[in-house]
Amino acid sequence: MRDVGLLFPGAAADAVTDDVAVARALLAVEAAWARAQAGRGVAPGDGADAVERAAAALGADAAALAADLASTVGGANPVIALVARLRAAAPEAAHVVHAGLTSQDVLDTALVLVLRDACRAVAADLGRACASAAALARAHRDAPALGRTLGQAAVPTTLGARFAGWLTGLSAARASLVDVAAALPLAYGGAAGELSGVAALTGDPFALVDAWGEALALPVPAGPWHTSRTPLVRAAAALAEACAALGHVAGDVLQGCRPETGELREPAAPGRGTSSSMAHKRNPVLAVLLRRSAIAAPPLAATVLTAAGLAHDERPDGAWHAEWPALQQLARHAVVGAGLAAELLDGLEVDAAAAEANLRAALPDARGVGAAPAVVDRVLAHLADVNPSEEP
Amino acid sequence: MRDVGLLFPGAAADAVTDDVAVARALLAVEAAWARAQAGRGVAPGDGADAVERAAAALGADAAALAADLASTVGGANPVIALVARLRAAAPEAAHVVHAGLTSQDVLDTALVLVLRDACRAVAADLGRACASAAALARAHRDAPALGRTLGQAAVPTTLGARFAGWLTGLSAARASLVDVAAALPLAYGGAAGELSGVAALTGDPFALVDAWGEALALPVPAGPWHTSRTPLVRAAAALAEACAALGHVAGDVLQGCRPETGELREPAAPGRGTSSSMAHKRNPVLAVLLRRSAIAAPPLAATVLTAAGLAHDERPDGAWHAEWPALQQLARHAVVGAGLAAELLDGLEVDAAAAEANLRAALPDARGVGAAPAVVDRVLAHLADVNPSEEP
Amino acid sequence: MRDVGLLFPGAAADAVTDDVAVARALLAVEAAWARAQAGRGVAPGDGADAVERAAAALGADAAALAADLASTVGGANPVIALVARLRAAAPEAAHVVHAGLTSQDVLDTALVLVLRDACRAVAADLGRACASAAALARAHRDAPALGRTLGQAAVPTTLGARFAGWLTGLSAARASLVDVAAALPLAYGGAAGELSGVAALTGDPFALVDAWGEALALPVPAGPWHTSRTPLVRAAAALAEACAALGHVAGDVLQGCRPETGELREPAAPGRGTSSSMAHKRNPVLAVLLRRSAIAAPPLAATVLTAAGLAHDERPDGAWHAEWPALQQLARHAVVGAGLAAELLDGLEVDAAAAEANLRAALPDARGVGAAPAVVDRVLAHLADVNPSEEP
Amino acid sequence: MRDVGLLFPGAAADAVTDDVAVARALLAVEAAWARAQAGRGVAPGDGADAVERAAAALGADAAALAADLASTVGGANPVIALVARLRAAAPEAAHVVHAGLTSQDVLDTALVLVLRDACRAVAADLGRACASAAALARAHRDAPALGRTLGQAAVPTTLGARFAGWLTGLSAARASLVDVAAALPLAYGGAAGELSGVAALTGDPFALVDAWGEALALPVPAGPWHTSRTPLVRAAAALAEACAALGHVAGDVLQGCRPETGELREPAAPGRGTSSSMAHKRNPVLAVLLRRSAIAAPPLAATVLTAAGLAHDERPDGAWHAEWPALQQLARHAVVGAGLAAELLDGLEVDAAAAEANLRAALPDARGVGAAPAVVDRVLAHLADVNPSEEP
Repeated sequence: MRDVGLLFPGAAADAVTDDVAVARALLAVEAAWARAQAGRGVAPGDGADAVERAAAALGADAAALAADLASTVGGANPVIALVARLRAAAPEAAHVVHAGLTSQDVLDTALVLVLRDACRAVAADLGRACASAAALARAHRDAPALGRTLGQAAVPTTLGARFAGWLTGLSAARASLVDVAAALPLAYGGAAGELSGVAALTGDPFALVDAWGEALALPVPAGPWHTSRTPLVRAAAALAEACAALGHVAGDVLQGCRPETGELREPAAPGRGTSSSMAHKRNPVLAVLLRRSAIAAPPLAATVLTAAGLAHDERPDGAWHAEWPALQQLARHAVVGAGLAAELLDGLEVDAAAAEANLRAALPDARGVGAAPAVVDRVLAHLADVNPSEEP
Repeated sequence: MRDVGLLFPGAAADAVTDDVAVARALLAVEAAWARAQAGRGVAPGDGADAVERAAAALGADAAALAADLASTVGGANPVIALVARLRAAAPEAAHVVHAGLTSQDVLDTALVLVLRDACRAVAADLGRACASAAALARAHRDAPALGRTLGQAAVPTTLGARFAGWLTGLSAARASLVDVAAALPLAYGGAAGELSGVAALTGDPFALVDAWGEALALPVPAGPWHTSRTPLVRAAAALAEACAALGHVAGDVLQGCRPETGELREPAAPGRGTSSSMAHKRNPVLAVLLRRSAIAAPPLAATVLTAAGLAHDERPDGAWHAEWPALQQLARHAVVGAGLAAELLDGLEVDAAAAEANLRAALPDARGVGAAPAVVDRVLAHLADVNPSEEP
Repeated sequence: MRDVGLLFPGAAADAVTDDVAVARALLAVEAAWARAQAGRGVAPGDGADAVERAAAALGADAAALAADLASTVGGANPVIALVARLRAAAPEAAHVVHAGLTSQDVLDTALVLVLRDACRAVAADLGRACASAAALARAHRDAPALGRTLGQAAVPTTLGARFAGWLTGLSAARASLVDVAAALPLAYGGAAGELSGVAALTGDPFALVDAWGEALALPVPAGPWHTSRTPLVRAAAALAEACAALGHVAGDVLQGCRPETGELREPAAPGRGTSSSMAHKRNPVLAVLLRRSAIAAPPLAATVLTAAGLAHDERPDGAWHAEWPALQQLARHAVVGAGLAAELLDGLEVDAAAAEANLRAALPDARGVGAAPAVVDRVLAHLADVNPSEEP
Repeated sequence: MRDVGLLFPGAAADAVTDDVAVARALLAVEAAWARAQAGRGVAPGDGADAVERAAAALGADAAALAADLASTVGGANPVIALVARLRAAAPEAAHVVHAGLTSQDVLDTALVLVLRDACRAVAADLGRACASAAALARAHRDAPALGRTLGQAAVPTTLGARFAGWLTGLSAARASLVDVAAALPLAYGGAAGELSGVAALTGDPFALVDAWGEALALPVPAGPWHTSRTPLVRAAAALAEACAALGHVAGDVLQGCRPETGELREPAAPGRGTSSSMAHKRNPVLAVLLRRSAIAAPPLAATVLTAAGLAHDERPDGAWHAEWPALQQLARHAVVGAGLAAELLDGLEVDAAAAEANLRAALPDARGVGAAPAVVDRVLAHLADVNPSEEP
């Protein structure tokens, strides 16, 4: 199989969540383990050097490595083949490679690294989207607009209040992702969460595990989580929350861009929004793709939750494996979506006159905009700490 | 329609999430609004008294009220009929009832109250379950057991390590619920999130909203969230996380109770676990029902996420309505499950000899239990702050 | 617990899928089994009479029976208590009640009866909806309208072509439901699908099972399906297909009713579509509720599929139980939705002048409507066999 | 992005559902359209020749084409770029390429081709699995085994009855897939389902559409289904039904392979079922991966259903796009799973002595196996028409 994003518009450039990124993360996890062993005196320093060199060599063509590791069913996970490749590439340090670990330690930790990268990327793009939403809310704080509920004309509000609503959801999602990125933990425990392999290497297995966590800048949790999948459940929830917040924006943009409404317009870019049959069209493709992801993400989060609830014994017999492609697809929706949203909100064109005209047409006798400007002020004041330049 | 839990074993006694509880919450929200108006001098004190009396009268038979409010499609939500009933019951204060509010303010806040109660009830029962899991882990810290991965014999571990894994997931879920219960906010904003109705009552609409939040002990968020559904998304995530943590326990109990394994046994109770055709059976029905909810909860959480991502305009035209039964069913799974789990873990019978025999049979040459006892100690040390007597 | 539809607008009158209906179906299944035994000479005729009388007596207050059966966790299903009640009510025929059966035979068959009723009710209402959609397509075959893709102006089409698209989905869903209603089978097999209990009653157990199926007008499948859940999977798929087809209609109605579009208007009814804060509103509540169900139904179908894939042994330990509330809620969405849709389409107001004006405004230079009228003719010709008066 | 199956063990060899297959299908659809035009005299024969040559040239490196088409967001679908590539490669027939079509005609039809191939592949592998299951049921028709319900010892049955249950689900799923493969229709309709582009080419647009369908061996439905997504909903349901039937088998295999049970054993293959840390293990990886897909498939089917229910206007603004990756992943789970299952069931090792010993240990006083052999006979008699050599 070879997927390149043909059925996932916007994902072609995704280098955060794809199999190549996973292959690199797997290598990083194994190399860090060798280094941690050396750091704690459990393995010789040149053993760690050898493993790192082998990892670097294999990582030089991570796409080929990914394809190689994927090529057999093997033990139903790619780590077994990875270990064989690493040992073959570093024969002098073969005993250092993966010493005391189990596949799940490595695969879970690699997934954590990929998810952390994904959460950070999404948070960064959401930061930019928040800044744009805040600017839009500020700029259109007082712009009269038709408030619509259940699709019907309700009362006057302002465009700024609508945009402040976007900011509310986007900044909350960003906060969730920042929290998750900081909390995503190292996975450890060995064959059955009993750490016997690590304990066979050293009298202080937790110290070695701590060194591993330090090498990967990952917090070390109280115990193994091979069958207590909270970390992945929370990552999935935060990624899905982001897709939902982006879907909310998309819904308003799509309605605002409809020809009868005409209040909003997506930023133009060469070749974007074109049609195969209608030259006159300028489709709101960024919002379309955000809505795509808002529909697709929740069931993927459900898969992660279901898998968590079916964990049993010391490693689940299928529930674990179900998490992988679901998390990958879910993270991809969030990563791609946040990037598209940052672009969308940065260049969104607002036709305040059209918004006011729609209001007047629907509610000719309505006066004022209620306390909408005060709502905008309050939202901006509370969420002013969103600083897009801050690194998540 | 009349549902009483016939197809939801364990839910018959649920008085936290059912329609009667929702009806009571709706009354509480409207009554608190009248009181807040009086407190801020916007309405006369006897007006608030009248509304509170009317609410109490209608709440005296909340089941009848619920059926009455449900009986028409009306405006596609029960608040419109509720307001009519309240005004009829307090004619002298009719103008105080619901003044300046919109249906969504009231329904969302009532749902928040119900969800807060549900989160607290689940957290309390999870607290008890955590205490039991911790006691089990401590008691069986060193009890040799077969570690199984992908269903196969892996390496020796201890029963305590397995139970510590339960504690890991349960205490994390409990923490999530405590956080959510504290954060669930008041919903406000008026017809289109522009607060015009409230602003028409008072020059300081936020002060009135704050008084309402205070009356209900709910935090008041920066702005309306009629279409920014983060609070409900997070509540759904925490409730589903709880169901998943309970499902993990259930999976191990069900495997441990199988006749060939025989390591665990559910607590007995008169009439529980019986069969319609086999008198000799003692079915692990508590775990069965936990597993039921672990399967059913994730798709309900997905519904809440999907609805959030489809929010648009100033009130969604169906996505809002899709949240209600999904949240109700999801909260019910968590509430019922946590109660069953507290009972299950409190009385779980452990056959340590059988566990050791299974280990010896599968891995006759294996020695030791690795660092499993140390893992137990570490998990207990980190999660020692779980105090089941503490009120969430 | 007591749910009456407070959070499920439109469901208050649902007597097809609620617990009362399930309780009645349980009684019908047990009574038919007694009658089948008598018919095959396995039990005395007056024993069957006694069981039928007992069932009728218990069914006289089916709501109370439902509440009673739901009141204990018991064996994690309501059949055990039901059998006790029936035996107590017909002591002279106690040995006939449930003889040779297992709980799952009875509960699954009762669910099948409820689902068959639901499928028939939905099919009947979809038949009416199809007739209305066909009439709308015919009436507006040539009415120029703006074709919109990705929310943007595309090319001219006709209102009739849009309505013919509704008919396409509705009639397909109706056909699926008719097929499912006819195919839903009797569940049988006894304690572990081995029919030993029935074989202990008679030398020809399949003949007795056939008589039971005949009494309930249910086809008897080749073998037990306690863990091969195809019948429920297909019922869930057909019910969800119906909700999706209704969601499609709803989406177009909601867009068509927006103030800027103004092409469609829901039929008026006293008190329907009103607002708690805005007297001028006429909300498209029927479409809102259809969209609600289009969002809520798919995850419920997923639960049924997940449960089917987790079936194991001779009866699943939780996957079975997860099906029940999911199927009930799913069937409810379809039953309620089809009824609302029949009403919606029967009275839908079409403003063809507004549709044409929208077309002219968006595409002033466009000419003609393509082959849209021919498309309408072809769809009507192919789907002309939909006869709403035909009993499904 | 580049995914090769690293997180989807078993999928590396999938050439049925990947982006390369989709790219080839897109080319086939456009080439068939050119040929259909020539066949109806709408385009010159050498124009069709030129388009076919261009399609063949682009298809020679379909992986590169897929990557190229995926590389821009463009119109949010890959057809626009495809048309440009084809026109550039066949400049003399540029006006023939895609004449009168819209992107959705082409993408939907290409998806249909891919799904048809997937359904056929799954049906073929399920045919083999059915033959093996039937042989297992026949061989072990009388082999005493412990019937287990809710995980507990129930009554005696036979291994054959359990295997007959597998056959029941597998053959039903196969039948669904055969039906879907035969019914999956051509997608047509042009820019807004009004066929104006095709009508501009010829006075008999349906004849041209029929020729297109004939060229692709696809039935031509009554009307366009751009927003009536029944065909995809039914394909998703059948694929998910297959994953569920396979999950049922997997559940029993996983339980049967547990060390305490020891009734079943997966077929051995070099390097399969190995562990990264435990040399003694032989993991039931085929069943593990089937269970993986049984967990992952239902939410993907839910996405397709949700998207169908959100279709609106003449082409949905995101719901359409959400279908693509969900269908691809769902079809992949079924394709991979059916292949693994065929291998699993072909070589499944059954330890009838262990099964009988488990029965005797749990139910020492039980006698007989009920009517289990008769159940096996009946299932085999009814499902005897499953002929694995027959081409679906």
